[in-house]
Amino acid sequence: VLIPVMAIEGEYTEFCEYETPVLGFICHASGILTKAIRVRKAAGDKLCLSFGIRRMHPALSPFIDFYAFMGGCDGVSSITGAEAINEKPKGTMPHALIILMGEEEAWKAFDEEMPPEVPRIALIDTYGDEKIQAIRAVETVKNLTGVRLDTPGSRRGDMGKIIQEIKWELKIRGKENVMIFISGGLDEYEVKKLKSAGADGFGVGTSLSNARTVDYAMDVVEVEGKPCAKKGKYGGRKRPFYCEKDRVFVVKKFEEESPFCPICKEKMESLFVQYIKDGEIVYEFEDIRKIRKRILKQLEKFSLENFEI
Amino acid sequence: VLIPVMAIEGEYTEFCEYETPVLGFICHASGILTKAIRVRKAAGDKLCLSFGIRRMHPALSPFIDFYAFMGGCDGVSSITGAEAINEKPKGTMPHALIILMGEEEAWKAFDEEMPPEVPRIALIDTYGDEKIQAIRAVETVKNLTGVRLDTPGSRRGDMGKIIQEIKWELKIRGKENVMIFISGGLDEYEVKKLKSAGADGFGVGTSLSNARTVDYAMDVVEVEGKPCAKKGKYGGRKRPFYCEKDRVFVVKKFEEESPFCPICKEKMESLFVQYIKDGEIVYEFEDIRKIRKRILKQLEKFSLENFEI
Amino acid sequence: VLIPVMAIEGEYTEFCEYETPVLGFICHASGILTKAIRVRKAAGDKLCLSFGIRRMHPALSPFIDFYAFMGGCDGVSSITGAEAINEKPKGTMPHALIILMGEEEAWKAFDEEMPPEVPRIALIDTYGDEKIQAIRAVETVKNLTGVRLDTPGSRRGDMGKIIQEIKWELKIRGKENVMIFISGGLDEYEVKKLKSAGADGFGVGTSLSNARTVDYAMDVVEVEGKPCAKKGKYGGRKRPFYCEKDRVFVVKKFEEESPFCPICKEKMESLFVQYIKDGEIVYEFEDIRKIRKRILKQLEKFSLENFEI
Amino acid sequence: VLIPVMAIEGEYTEFCEYETPVLGFICHASGILTKAIRVRKAAGDKLCLSFGIRRMHPALSPFIDFYAFMGGCDGVSSITGAEAINEKPKGTMPHALIILMGEEEAWKAFDEEMPPEVPRIALIDTYGDEKIQAIRAVETVKNLTGVRLDTPGSRRGDMGKIIQEIKWELKIRGKENVMIFISGGLDEYEVKKLKSAGADGFGVGTSLSNARTVDYAMDVVEVEGKPCAKKGKYGGRKRPFYCEKDRVFVVKKFEEESPFCPICKEKMESLFVQYIKDGEIVYEFEDIRKIRKRILKQLEKFSLENFEI
Amino acid sequence: VLIPVMAIEGEYTEFCEYETPVLGFICHASGILTKAIRVRKAAGDKLCLSFGIRRMHPALSPFIDFYAFMGGCDGVSSITGAEAINEKPKGTMPHALIILMGEEEAWKAFDEEMPPEVPRIALIDTYGDEKIQAIRAVETVKNLTGVRLDTPGSRRGDMGKIIQEIKWELKIRGKENVMIFISGGLDEYEVKKLKSAGADGFGVGTSLSNARTVDYAMDVVEVEGKPCAKKGKYGGRKRPFYCEKDRVFVVKKFEEESPFCPICKEKMESLFVQYIKDGEIVYEFEDIRKIRKRILKQLEKFSLENFEI
Amino acid sequence: VLIPVMAIEGEYTEFCEYETPVLGFICHASGILTKAIRVRKAAGDKLCLSFGIRRMHPALSPFIDFYAFMGGCDGVSSITGAEAINEKPKGTMPHALIILMGEEEAWKAFDEEMPPEVPRIALIDTYGDEKIQAIRAVETVKNLTGVRLDTPGSRRGDMGKIIQEIKWELKIRGKENVMIFISGGLDEYEVKKLKSAGADGFGVGTSLSNARTVDYAMDVVEVEGKPCAKKGKYGGRKRPFYCEKDRVFVVKKFEEESPFCPICKEKMESLFVQYIKDGEIVYEFEDIRKIRKRILKQLEKFSLENFEI
Repeated sequence: VLIPVMAIEGEYTEFCEYETPVLGFICHASGILTKAIRVRKAAGDKLCLSFGIRRMHPALSPFIDFYAFMGGCDGVSSITGAEAINEKPKGTMPHALIILMGEEEAWKAFDEEMPPEVPRIALIDTYGDEKIQAIRAVETVKNLTGVRLDTPGSRRGDMGKIIQEIKWELKIRGKENVMIFISGGLDEYEVKKLKSAGADGFGVGTSLSNARTVDYAMDVVEVEGKPCAKKGKYGGRKRPFYCEKDRVFVVKKFEEESPFCPICKEKMESLFVQYIKDGEIVYEFEDIRKIRKRILKQLEKFSLENFEI
Repeated sequence: VLIPVMAIEGEYTEFCEYETPVLGFICHASGILTKAIRVRKAAGDKLCLSFGIRRMHPALSPFIDFYAFMGGCDGVSSITGAEAINEKPKGTMPHALIILMGEEEAWKAFDEEMPPEVPRIALIDTYGDEKIQAIRAVETVKNLTGVRLDTPGSRRGDMGKIIQEIKWELKIRGKENVMIFISGGLDEYEVKKLKSAGADGFGVGTSLSNARTVDYAMDVVEVEGKPCAKKGKYGGRKRPFYCEKDRVFVVKKFEEESPFCPICKEKMESLFVQYIKDGEIVYEFEDIRKIRKRILKQLEKFSLENFEI
Repeated sequence: VLIPVMAIEGEYTEFCEYETPVLGFICHASGILTKAIRVRKAAGDKLCLSFGIRRMHPALSPFIDFYAFMGGCDGVSSITGAEAINEKPKGTMPHALIILMGEEEAWKAFDEEMPPEVPRIALIDTYGDEKIQAIRAVETVKNLTGVRLDTPGSRRGDMGKIIQEIKWELKIRGKENVMIFISGGLDEYEVKKLKSAGADGFGVGTSLSNARTVDYAMDVVEVEGKPCAKKGKYGGRKRPFYCEKDRVFVVKKFEEESPFCPICKEKMESLFVQYIKDGEIVYEFEDIRKIRKRILKQLEKFSLENFEI
Repeated sequence: VLIPVMAIEGEYTEFCEYETPVLGFICHASGILTKAIRVRKAAGDKLCLSFGIRRMHPALSPFIDFYAFMGGCDGVSSITGAEAINEKPKGTMPHALIILMGEEEAWKAFDEEMPPEVPRIALIDTYGDEKIQAIRAVETVKNLTGVRLDTPGSRRGDMGKIIQEIKWELKIRGKENVMIFISGGLDEYEVKKLKSAGADGFGVGTSLSNARTVDYAMDVVEVEGKPCAKKGKYGGRKRPFYCEKDRVFVVKKFEEESPFCPICKEKMESLFVQYIKDGEIVYEFEDIRKIRKRILKQLEKFSLENFEI
Repeated sequence: VLIPVMAIEGEYTEFCEYETPVLGFICHASGILTKAIRVRKAAGDKLCLSFGIRRMHPALSPFIDFYAFMGGCDGVSSITGAEAINEKPKGTMPHALIILMGEEEAWKAFDEEMPPEVPRIALIDTYGDEKIQAIRAVETVKNLTGVRLDTPGSRRGDMGKIIQEIKWELKIRGKENVMIFISGGLDEYEVKKLKSAGADGFGVGTSLSNARTVDYAMDVVEVEGKPCAKKGKYGGRKRPFYCEKDRVFVVKKFEEESPFCPICKEKMESLFVQYIKDGEIVYEFEDIRKIRKRILKQLEKFSLENFEI
Repeated sequence: VLIPVMAIEGEYTEFCEYETPVLGFICHASGILTKAIRVRKAAGDKLCLSFGIRRMHPALSPFIDFYAFMGGCDGVSSITGAEAINEKPKGTMPHALIILMGEEEAWKAFDEEMPPEVPRIALIDTYGDEKIQAIRAVETVKNLTGVRLDTPGSRRGDMGKIIQEIKWELKIRGKENVMIFISGGLDEYEVKKLKSAGADGFGVGTSLSNARTVDYAMDVVEVEGKPCAKKGKYGGRKRPFYCEKDRVFVVKKFEEESPFCPICKEKMESLFVQYIKDGEIVYEFEDIRKIRKRILKQLEKFSLENFEI
């Protein structure tokens, strides 16, 4: 988890009113966001799309895809999700099209009918072997952008070796620019492995949309100025500080001064922000693309291993 | 998973329109329902409440609590969830009340102010040791219904031993009727263990609301009467049959006759049901309490181990 | 190992002359035989062919295939091996034929050219998915005997599920008699698993021909009538006895009487046989088919687990 | 495996004729050779003899011992094997001699009768403890070259500690030049461990002769100039290149130019060699001692861990 | 542990005075006793001697050997220990004797000098192999009672196989009555294994004398008639009851009546015993041989697995 | 173990007389000493008391506590142990006092009655939660030195987190000087973990007093000037040498010259010391505080991992 401590403050009546919905937004969103960040980290600079909403309640689509995008996905496949981030939905042809039209016919029809800005990605795993069909696809569609492998579980041998074979066959046919796009049961560990085998893009699904929620809690820690806390919790109002350079968090009593970073010895920056005051939102939210950029920038300093959830 | 195969049938345009939302409802609901059923199985005839919505998007509350109830929970804690099942919400006093009033004061106030039908369950883990506070609670509130333990992770020693100690102390004081109610980080395995140590009730949270979604898929398996299927899927229209007595599923081609159960040799019952026709719902849904009853009845024949997800 | 103790006796000069070659024949043959027996046990009554000589020194072919057959294989693929057991070699079309002619063309040509007694087994894994190609093969060759899957390692997903899918597709097309024949990297554990998924035949290769040799030794245990033995060996001339009914071995001093079986209390049968006397073979070898039959009969009393090597 | 890719090329009729025997020679020989190389690497500059043929078919002796020698064994124990490499067989006295003559008598007789160039290695584990008998042997035979330990499995305690004890006892008696030679159940891991405990020589047996065969295959990858390949194989004629300095392999299409080494940027050397043309061997084989020398030279750059099989 | 609950009762001043020494006696003695009981259970009716005092403070010898004997050892090797149980010390010749006199000489001297009632047990592992020396010992000493194997760690191969070999060699020489006595690094698991291989006696050492102490505690559980207890302890004076037939313990409040056994429904026997009153011992201790007999009788109902410590 | 080899020398009659008691002292003392050294290493410069004698035979108290102190404990809790090292016993109030008086009353009484030099350490885990009671203790006793946590097993959650919480609460109340003292079931691994969580002192018990004895042996290795040894032992009189700078041991024949350290090439120091001559102690023992100081000095060069027992 990127931000391990969040101080939330309020009157008791507000506390009762806000506790459950506020917690729900923060915990659930943090779960999806954290997973998306991990997947992005694993994928490096490769294409990464959120394919995940199909197996969750449809009302969640914009919520899931919004945080998938914030965590670094290049695009999302659901229509409502795409609206939430003000982008066009991104995907490839479905299996159903191929079953109805036949494989080569579907590839050709897609190539002929689609507007030129849509990438030509042929879904090649419906009936045949991935390598053999990749060869057939580049021979069938002249300007193919890529091939998509969505190999079902019962056929999942060594996907890394299959990708390497396809790359060889494309290369000896002068088609090294055709990208290899993988989907189906991926998580960050799979993405990392397949990327190093040569995959160029990923569609990540249920591991993202059904990510483990993050376990935040809201507790009363001060009553009329006196610190208090149930067992297991730290008492008193607190203010977290952060040193961006050294990635160090320090938590202090609220009234204490900003501390100095234990590493670089410079003054640390307060992370305290007031969102709601007297029931009104007093915080001016940043543009989401700016936030996303900052997240991706912070990400450069972390490795997949050191923000394990 | 209780129902491992579901045949879904439709025209292609309907297919495209329905695929994602229908799948989402089925997969997500099945995940929560399956978990709730497992928790109920583990809890046997003990009290079991859904405490799980706090860490999920608030819009999901009625959805989560509805399926938690269908899977066997005796009640739910969220207001919108309780409405969805037409029950009153069930819960106990929060930690916040105790922090504001003090422990004994809060117990007493709750006892004095609450209408008589509300059970007197004292939250006893805010500051002290579970056993010591259980003794204090039964000495403070005369007609205590139960004590609730919500021990935080950092204090979780051997909860089974703690329960046994509390039972001993209550017993030598003539209070063996005071129930012991546990919450905090429970799943079906914990519930099973603590039940056998003597716990009388459970509040199950995030493990229920954030349950793993179940991996159903929708596939084109027949085109103009001819079976077809992508690799990894079984082709042709199918009809599942079930023998309730022997808990046997058999899947047949749609036009085949009902088979005989391989165990009892009696004719099997078709599970085929038409829900939607020409875009209209043609199925008359049963009363939810009737469905729930049937699920709990079926549950008697299963053990926690043989419907593992 | 089926026969754990073998007493070998001789003069010292014979000992020196015979030790290495005799040991080599016994140990190496026992290794292959034991593996073949285990594979046969795993395969039950399914077809089982020895495909194993390709990766071993060609001079060993008749030796390997002879013991593979003795251990229960129904046939062998090498020409010299087949001669050694006085059978015709058994196999199916090679990948090379399909690569040269194309898949459907090769299946058809094989069907048209081959004499009627040769089974029509189509090799279906060269280019496409196993299920899709099985459907194509039964549609292409009218009286197909079976399909052969030789799936390479990088495509090995869940072979059991693939077999089940093929069986379903063949069945809904009225082709349930077409057998499914598997080869490629099989050992007894794989054979057991795939048989229970529905496979009808197996080609077992390197695990058979490169089986672990069995560790027999020849030791001097008596000198001029006096027992002697190096440390780690049992001294004195010995005679092994066997009770076939209860599968019990007892080893006695050579001059002792036949003991009684500790279970059925009947007299045990001596296993002592003199093969060579004064440098001449004095033993009349049985017909190999009779020996093979006896081995298979004994096999019925063992399970795969209780003669582990 | 040292050489992971071997391109084999031929007409189709040749392909059919050669496939099985050629594969057999290459796979089987590579298995033994690879094991011998690993054992040599583990043994460093210590004496290392092939003792392995006893438990394999006697016809294989020259084949096994030839590749054991090529992989770095200093000598071989079988007569036919020794002929194959044009050396004298190397071994020590057998247990049988000691059992027939008595221990001290056998040592003395061996010392008195053998020509002076044969090393005096006393087999000391027949009856007594290794350390005690090592002391007795050096006291019995004046110019003893070494002692051999062939400790049977049931007495195998900590061989490293036993070797250290023997070295201490020999040293305090001024016999530190007497070498310690170990045999019995050794593989490369045992050899490595015992070498570091102080052993001076090793006789390696069944782990060498019964080594796992290496899994090469022959595939049609080009038909009339067009690349083709079954799934799981790389298509087209290929040429492997090697940079000896940086131990890097690169495989290219046959007609491509020699690439530059990705590390040292120098031109890589083609490993393409034509052995057979029109059914005639056109390759002039090098002297086997020269090949062996080159193998041992290459070996210096590898560690036991980085060419794991 | 055989007796899992012990109620100890007293005035507070006595509590302070007695706590540490009483606890020390009970915990330490219970540790040794429990281990001895487990070893006896493993040894069945075989000879079992306590050899354990050598590596512990010499003042403990009588204490260790007393409880080793009470737990079922047939005898003890230390002089002070033997006095404590009113027996003669039992042991065999030491290695030092053999090193000073030579092996055969020591065996013969022992045989000639020792009074006839001392068993002739030859220590045979000083220099040679166990099997070879066992043969030599029975050939040297006419009426040998047994041989002792004390094989050092670095020679510990498969002791079970060595014992089986020795039994074979003794048997073919008509010496099947010579017992095999094992010592050196034994615990209950080793004893069990070697007994089933045929060993006739055991000398158990450090695992017995350095056994893990048992974790009893003394707590104040009642003050002036009111139950009290720190967290983690059960409050109030208690009385344990036992059903010998069904091996069931039930703990009740002190003033409660004797309960009925939950299995056989008969009245349970109180285990309450008053040892000390007003500082005087008021309990008449039984004869130690009677206690030991009762322990061994109870032992019959337990298996090694169900009183694990 | 710090000193792996100890040469002991003597006449045979002395050998017999001394063997058992001398071995017992050395092995048992070394076991406790080694454990104490490991615990001290783990505790770094934190307070470390020996609380260990309660579960061992009371006669051992001075022996256990003497070696616990020599290995680095700052003090011991037993009266006889404290006498043995000429220190005052160190401990804190017992649970019994708190149960009799009540928690706050006992803290206050201890504070009022005890002489000023005794540290005020409040035992806080009798009834309540560690954090809550720590806050109460600092509010009750003005000049509290520390709080002691002796949390029972059934309440042992994450002690590290509990310590961190207590430190936070003490700090926001300006009591950061109050030390946190931990006892109950500690060994070196626990001590290491809790120290890094912020604990200031440790009471180590049974793991110290019931430490595994160290396996020294006494053997005859020379008879009348001739080296001899049973199998498994090194023969001849020996002299160990040590290089303190590089922590290297070398063992040589007794009459050999001092060798040079294989690392720094300087002459090594002989560790040979004569303790007893003709039955008289001829060695002048150093002051125990000097020995202890030397042990602690040596300890600086070792890590917990590299003198594992």
